[in-house]
Amino acid sequence: MTTLGITDGQVLRPDTTVEAADVLIDQESGEILDVEPDIGASADEILDASDSLVMPGLVNAHGHAAMTLLRGYADDKPLEAWLREDVWPVEAELTGEDVAAGTRLAMLEMIRSGTTAFVDMYFEVPDVVAAIEEAGMRARVGHGVVTVGKDDEAAREDAAESIAVAETFDGAADGRVRTAFMPHSLTTVSEEVFREFVPQAREAGVPVHIHVNETTHEVDPIVEERGMRPVEYAREVGLFDPESDQRDFLAHGVHSDSGEVEALAETGGGVVHCPASNMKLASGMAPVQAMLDAGVPVGLGTDGAASNNDLDLFGEMRDAAMLGKLASEDASAVAAPDVVRMATEGGATVAGLPGGRVEPGAAADLAVVGFDAPHLTPTHDHVSHLAYAATGSDVRHTVCDGRVLMRDREVRTLDAEAVRTEATERAFDLVSRAE
Amino acid sequence: MTTLGITDGQVLRPDTTVEAADVLIDQESGEILDVEPDIGASADEILDASDSLVMPGLVNAHGHAAMTLLRGYADDKPLEAWLREDVWPVEAELTGEDVAAGTRLAMLEMIRSGTTAFVDMYFEVPDVVAAIEEAGMRARVGHGVVTVGKDDEAAREDAAESIAVAETFDGAADGRVRTAFMPHSLTTVSEEVFREFVPQAREAGVPVHIHVNETTHEVDPIVEERGMRPVEYAREVGLFDPESDQRDFLAHGVHSDSGEVEALAETGGGVVHCPASNMKLASGMAPVQAMLDAGVPVGLGTDGAASNNDLDLFGEMRDAAMLGKLASEDASAVAAPDVVRMATEGGATVAGLPGGRVEPGAAADLAVVGFDAPHLTPTHDHVSHLAYAATGSDVRHTVCDGRVLMRDREVRTLDAEAVRTEATERAFDLVSRAE
Repeated sequence: MTTLGITDGQVLRPDTTVEAADVLIDQESGEILDVEPDIGASADEILDASDSLVMPGLVNAHGHAAMTLLRGYADDKPLEAWLREDVWPVEAELTGEDVAAGTRLAMLEMIRSGTTAFVDMYFEVPDVVAAIEEAGMRARVGHGVVTVGKDDEAAREDAAESIAVAETFDGAADGRVRTAFMPHSLTTVSEEVFREFVPQAREAGVPVHIHVNETTHEVDPIVEERGMRPVEYAREVGLFDPESDQRDFLAHGVHSDSGEVEALAETGGGVVHCPASNMKLASGMAPVQAMLDAGVPVGLGTDGAASNNDLDLFGEMRDAAMLGKLASEDASAVAAPDVVRMATEGGATVAGLPGGRVEPGAAADLAVVGFDAPHLTPTHDHVSHLAYAATGSDVRHTVCDGRVLMRDREVRTLDAEAVRTEATERAFDLVSRAE
Repeated sequence: MTTLGITDGQVLRPDTTVEAADVLIDQESGEILDVEPDIGASADEILDASDSLVMPGLVNAHGHAAMTLLRGYADDKPLEAWLREDVWPVEAELTGEDVAAGTRLAMLEMIRSGTTAFVDMYFEVPDVVAAIEEAGMRARVGHGVVTVGKDDEAAREDAAESIAVAETFDGAADGRVRTAFMPHSLTTVSEEVFREFVPQAREAGVPVHIHVNETTHEVDPIVEERGMRPVEYAREVGLFDPESDQRDFLAHGVHSDSGEVEALAETGGGVVHCPASNMKLASGMAPVQAMLDAGVPVGLGTDGAASNNDLDLFGEMRDAAMLGKLASEDASAVAAPDVVRMATEGGATVAGLPGGRVEPGAAADLAVVGFDAPHLTPTHDHVSHLAYAATGSDVRHTVCDGRVLMRDREVRTLDAEAVRTEATERAFDLVSRAE
């Protein structure tokens, strides 16, 4: 057994209390062996956590990693115009190598900000999986299906590809990669495709991940044409089925009404809250406190870097806490411990991935956050600082599946300079091809 | 003449375009001599700006610096309860040495995040001024007046102190310190005190800075008791007087209606928008796009660290852009160039301080932001990255009044370890005295 010891730090426990302890990890199984004072110093490898807090690695439960290539390319536009005029024309030019380069850049940024797992809805999934294998992160990935504007055959091909990559890559990268069937949304994918392919996802044993209730443009047509709310329609076509072994999960849920929140709670359907994207695209304010009160599993996602524009989940925790208060008109809503749980255990639960807790037997997916910066001084409350004052650049070390991905801010699994250079070249070339 | 050259960078010009140029500074006058390619290398001192953007130093136009001591002490509570139960009992125990320690911690954080000037409404102003002199920043400071709960004599004493310190310290620290008369708000200061002391502020030649329209709890009593909006009442008691040489400025303005926005535009009254504080305390969404459209001068402020919980104006730019879109229900509202201007030239204008522009003759108050981080890659648009993706920790160098306050992330004017240690000790002692 090779062991990793994280020594001399404070540890964030699953109940969000903080205590002084070492963390001892079995690097072969990738699991936490024990969390106790003075047990780390004799490990094979040591990570110093003095003046620092050891917390679960953050889980970015909804995004489009390779969209880092479009970071800052087109801002300050509404979702529909932005997709049609800027994003989709560029995405039409994407190659597998572009996607790999953008995904590597995303992972470099995520590892540097303490994120150990992410959910990725995009294209060229084989290239995405190869990049994840290299970077050492954990992920649930899928091919995003859009059938609007396609003939029947092309629509079915797209959906079949999403099922096929989900089957092929589930369990890849020593089990760190899981998959899902990923229809883009209830309005961009036809009813026929849902009815034909959701059963195939069930057969393949993979969950469904989809955008729901992001903007009113997505809600109104369903309500008008079908006389039902989007979550009701989703259930009609087989999603969020409590009888299934698979927990489906949706991104956004901004315009979910109380009946939909209740339905999600009843069926165990998870929600990935993406506050920065919802604000930047003026999509609205999700009823997050109501979801938490109802018992809906809630995680946090950055969405793609083009609508955020970073992949730092510390910023997302802050955004979630602040937007949640504004949405509830109550400064006590969506409190610091709530957002810290959403960014860790909540995201892991929603995405069906290991991690999210620092305790014996849990996956050794961890972030070590330095607390000696002026903006984290004084420390009356560690959890408050995680939610409101820390940023990704305060993360010192990142560990996933027992392996050290970043040590003292040096990422070990990716060559930062090479990743930045390739992504920049490919981004500029991609944009010039599309223009 | 001793010169400072900032070499090999990109420069953010006042029209928010970006061009490759050096910046040459006269350190004695504290002014920018020229902005041209290849002029910096022969200066007496050189700051390398390769892979970086030279921008105006950020202006934190509303805050309570020493409240860093209470960072994270009491979160997730509404403004009124938070003030009465948590903040005021602790503030009652504050000594001048506590305030100096908290202000030094705030300035350490601000210098490290590219802020060169700030507005401070607090107590123990002589200690605040001494700390500013030491740290080398620029500021407009004042003693915050609260008369509610005081007898007439005590109320008048408090206001007289605010006038006295404004007269004494205006022009201190080689002119870097300016002052203002600072009544806390329209509901916590009596009408009599406004009527007696605003004319004294005019005589002293200092502007008035005050909280207005922060929460509905502040608006409703004025509307009910006086039958007029808060900005109307403020004008009644002598504030925002277009005949005065002094430009008064208010913090927050969240619940300003269209008539109030128009009145501010007509009188030249400035607004300091504090989006993070307004979200965290669930105060509401200020009509910032309407203010910009009407021509109201708008700056950005972090407010105190207890309601934010950091003093990083990069985060505040992001919050302002995002909240502005949500408030306007329009993703094109409060765009990236708008928030960058608000955080620089806007804040300088509102607070009546030099700085805010990188051009010959302007005050040499500058931040040099490194652009070689993964989260700022690729760079399709520098201004987008400043607004949405950069954080204070991307700042490499900070210059104020021609003097280098931070070089390669080492703050020169404050001993970071000593400041952190003293602030921590004083914060814990202060809280234990209050409890």
